[in-house]
Amino acid sequence: MPKRVDPLERRQTIAAAAVTSIARHGLDGAKLSRIARLAGVTTGAVTHYFEDKDEVLLAALEEVCRRLMEKLAEPDRRAAVDQLADALPLDSQSLDEWRVWVAFWGRAAFVPALARVHRAYYERIEAALTDALGGGKSARLDAAAIIAAIDGIGTRVCLEPELWPPERQRALLAHILSPLGTLQGDRNADASAPAA
Amino acid sequence: MPKRVDPLERRQTIAAAAVTSIARHGLDGAKLSRIARLAGVTTGAVTHYFEDKDEVLLAALEEVCRRLMEKLAEPDRRAAVDQLADALPLDSQSLDEWRVWVAFWGRAAFVPALARVHRAYYERIEAALTDALGGGKSARLDAAAIIAAIDGIGTRVCLEPELWPPERQRALLAHILSPLGTLQGDRNADASAPAA
Repeated sequence: MPKRVDPLERRQTIAAAAVTSIARHGLDGAKLSRIARLAGVTTGAVTHYFEDKDEVLLAALEEVCRRLMEKLAEPDRRAAVDQLADALPLDSQSLDEWRVWVAFWGRAAFVPALARVHRAYYERIEAALTDALGGGKSARLDAAAIIAAIDGIGTRVCLEPELWPPERQRALLAHILSPLGTLQGDRNADASAPAA
Repeated sequence: MPKRVDPLERRQTIAAAAVTSIARHGLDGAKLSRIARLAGVTTGAVTHYFEDKDEVLLAALEEVCRRLMEKLAEPDRRAAVDQLADALPLDSQSLDEWRVWVAFWGRAAFVPALARVHRAYYERIEAALTDALGGGKSARLDAAAIIAAIDGIGTRVCLEPELWPPERQRALLAHILSPLGTLQGDRNADASAPAA
């Protein structure tokens, strides 16, 4: 019996291949045939699941957003700054995701449909962070600060990756975010824990 | 007697027109004929002063860097954070400059020549800021924090400009930067003045 193909799964495989392709060749160099090859499917399969190339590229952006939201949705026992650092380009996969992100920024300023995707992302992530920080006005301001710090560091890492090993990225993020009011919560918790 | 044309001045006029053109139409939509029209010269004049389109686009990026360095090179009596806020997209001209900046980021990750320009810019600006903050390791870390904060806020403003009036941009920058050690300098200097 032939294996049944889950259309959602197939779309996601193609979107993931598009992420890799954009990260390697940029938005200009992203070709359906390349994406199909990376996904291990035919070009026909790609056009079966997606209307056109723009829809594939948009799916790549959504895939990057999805992965980021997934990372941030897994709160653990580490300090808040260490958890937030997971959103930085700390390894080659997340550097790929960041390259896609930054490539789309360059186009979103001129393409309203793309700008809407970015805007919706900012809204979701800011709401999630504000919530995680306890809500209220100061949590909202801290959430905006976190987003700006991560975007600023991530952009720079994309442009000079070899100068920014993970520990340097983490140190800069901690330097910027540690003084924020609503992030002090867990630090106090750490201080009250027995010294390791 | 015909007016003599200063070649450097003419190059700068064309570079400034390229900034406006990229800000309006993106890197993909930047055409030499459009740039020439905005500069008030013929397309032939553009190709007289520049090897090719890529060289014009590079000149636009350099023009944006030049303006930013000029802004930061004029220290005044305002608080450090207010002066740094001058680098944000606070008005339509600086929003144009930011759109150029972000458009190039999207391409620089894939074009080594562009990445080199960005890298050289980061080096210069970081050195200038480190120096202005009194030098040393903590000044260098604060300089990197300032660059990340400004890049992060500026990027977001490019994507949702109508949500970020100047006072909101300034408030977020102050929220992020005010706690930084070396920016407190003038206050500490007052407190410890006799020690000098």
